[in-house]
Amino acid sequence: PGKSMSKLIVLAKKTKKLGQDDPRRIIHSLKVGLAITLVSLFYYFEPLYDGFGVSAMWAVLTVVVVFEFSVGGTLSRGLNRGLATFLAAGLGFGAHHLANLSGKLGEPILLGLFVFLLASTVTFVRFFPRMKARYDYGLLIFILTFCLISVSGYRDDEVWHMAHMRVSTILIGGFTAVCVCILIFPVWAGTDLHNLVANNIDKLANFLEGFGPLYFQIPQDGEMDMTFLEGYKCVLNSKQTEESLANFAGWEPGHGEFRFRHPWKQYLKIGSLTRNCAYRIEALNGYLNTETKIPEEIRGKMQDACINMSSEAVKALKELAFSIQTMTKPCSANSHITKSKIAAKNLKSLLSASLCKETEILDLIPAVAVASLLVDVVACTEKIEESVQE
Amino acid sequence: PGKSMSKLIVLAKKTKKLGQDDPRRIIHSLKVGLAITLVSLFYYFEPLYDGFGVSAMWAVLTVVVVFEFSVGGTLSRGLNRGLATFLAAGLGFGAHHLANLSGKLGEPILLGLFVFLLASTVTFVRFFPRMKARYDYGLLIFILTFCLISVSGYRDDEVWHMAHMRVSTILIGGFTAVCVCILIFPVWAGTDLHNLVANNIDKLANFLEGFGPLYFQIPQDGEMDMTFLEGYKCVLNSKQTEESLANFAGWEPGHGEFRFRHPWKQYLKIGSLTRNCAYRIEALNGYLNTETKIPEEIRGKMQDACINMSSEAVKALKELAFSIQTMTKPCSANSHITKSKIAAKNLKSLLSASLCKETEILDLIPAVAVASLLVDVVACTEKIEESVQE
Repeated sequence: PGKSMSKLIVLAKKTKKLGQDDPRRIIHSLKVGLAITLVSLFYYFEPLYDGFGVSAMWAVLTVVVVFEFSVGGTLSRGLNRGLATFLAAGLGFGAHHLANLSGKLGEPILLGLFVFLLASTVTFVRFFPRMKARYDYGLLIFILTFCLISVSGYRDDEVWHMAHMRVSTILIGGFTAVCVCILIFPVWAGTDLHNLVANNIDKLANFLEGFGPLYFQIPQDGEMDMTFLEGYKCVLNSKQTEESLANFAGWEPGHGEFRFRHPWKQYLKIGSLTRNCAYRIEALNGYLNTETKIPEEIRGKMQDACINMSSEAVKALKELAFSIQTMTKPCSANSHITKSKIAAKNLKSLLSASLCKETEILDLIPAVAVASLLVDVVACTEKIEESVQE
Repeated sequence: PGKSMSKLIVLAKKTKKLGQDDPRRIIHSLKVGLAITLVSLFYYFEPLYDGFGVSAMWAVLTVVVVFEFSVGGTLSRGLNRGLATFLAAGLGFGAHHLANLSGKLGEPILLGLFVFLLASTVTFVRFFPRMKARYDYGLLIFILTFCLISVSGYRDDEVWHMAHMRVSTILIGGFTAVCVCILIFPVWAGTDLHNLVANNIDKLANFLEGFGPLYFQIPQDGEMDMTFLEGYKCVLNSKQTEESLANFAGWEPGHGEFRFRHPWKQYLKIGSLTRNCAYRIEALNGYLNTETKIPEEIRGKMQDACINMSSEAVKALKELAFSIQTMTKPCSANSHITKSKIAAKNLKSLLSASLCKETEILDLIPAVAVASLLVDVVACTEKIEESVQE
């Protein structure tokens, strides 16, 4: 019992942490509960239930399947579902009618052929990367609805009735989901993307800020916060997240400071430059863990230049992150980058002038090399940043 | 018309390329078509249709939704769906019964409460990363089935009948999907993961192989194939693909040379080490594009050592990739790594002895630094590789 007790406590702690990390998760859960309850009760009460019949469960199904964490996700799935159902219903009705005309024997053969052709083709279309990104769910629903309607054993007028019921219940379900999603504490994928890109730049800055003192083993006041060493790691694998957020953001209407057609692709560009920078930082991080220590005399010489250079880069990165966050023009980032470049040059000449004894050059250079790369990347980021402001 | 014609041609070319890149896509599309047609016709023929009624469409729905590209994906979704439906049906039946007992007035309130609580809780559970990875789809179906059954306006015995029908149709649908998926040209996620990991290592080797001659501008016989420069880029973002493949592979039964509980996690470890190595290579790639040229005299000196070092690393990487591919023990990889390390040491001493004129150290060192890092990573990979062979 003691063991299961401690497991329970661990679980409770995990749950609490999950909720604290992002309280919107709790709100989202409650929102889903609310939307489903609304639709369920709507469906439960007899008068409506009699009117819609079994298709009413499509309303519940729609809410469950369509409701996503972000507004963009919900809209994307809802529109996909609505549009696909509508198109497929029309096509399915046509196929059904055509098969009906061909008599008792030809009907199943023709229907089978239609279903096979359509399902195969649409499944193949789902492999196109562009279709997959935006319309994957819609294509799935398209196959589904087409099969259900074309193969249904009903007579033509029954099919009309069924299609009508289905479309209206799906509309009710989708409408409920979208309303609850947008009206109660909406989570905008666009805002998330905006913050993610800014935070990622910030994380790189945090690493660089801590890197200098740690590499040169400068004693710090008080305990040092080592979390910055791990922070940038998630930037390395942020590609998929950014892409799906940008995709969802494209479905969202204007909100807050974002217009409807906000240039979300710019964020992807900045994100990919940030990732490039993060790869360099990952390489830099490798040098923190190696045991080889720098000879004392050289350390003193290069320490100032290095720290100066990285602190200017940190200032530039932080300002860029801040300016993305607040959507203002970065005013002093450029001068920080220039200063950082000057520091890099100083370091270069320092190195080639004085480091020609039998020291292990390999121990010193990497930091410089990567940092100078970093400066380039920062300059790149700034270019993109400016284009966002336009 | 000419414009739309050329667009069509572009589309046709894209389609052809998509099919040629991986012919399994075409087979998969045909398989989906086949499975859906089978189930649809099964559902269409009157005697069966009378027996199953409207729930028969759940069979079609199940096939459409469950059928995934790989066997593991299909099994994972199928089992998730089956299990979730079964559990939720039981729970929903209980809730329905309990609400029935509480009279005309209490029933909707109690039902609403149940649905709200369950939907909110399960939605929150979906945020747990572990649950999300393996059971996301099952949890969704769980909410769905629970709502449909508990809220259905039917009497108790009707609910039993409905639940029975639904479970049997879902079993038929799931069974068809799984059979078609496994019996006709199965695509195993495990095999894909296996090949992906081996290929990724190979791609790094290809880059390194081409890097030396390109960096030192050694003239090559004939046209040089530059595709290797891009090949490693996809390794950088392979994390999500590898994880989802490993997840699917965990659901697959034994096949080919893989036992049921093949240590798929080892592949993730190797994959992450490969990615670490790719980050270094990405940094290395940055030096190819910089315009600064190396002074002639130094180039000659370091060229041999560098190329020697990287060619040994290439041999080791290629052998590792080959040994993963064929599931054999790498026999000479270790000696290649040792040779590569010796070459690295030679290069080091060469550098510290002779490069003390006013040369731009920054231009030369990075290649060395990263290559020596690379050797470490290769050694790491080998360790993991050995543990896989156990």
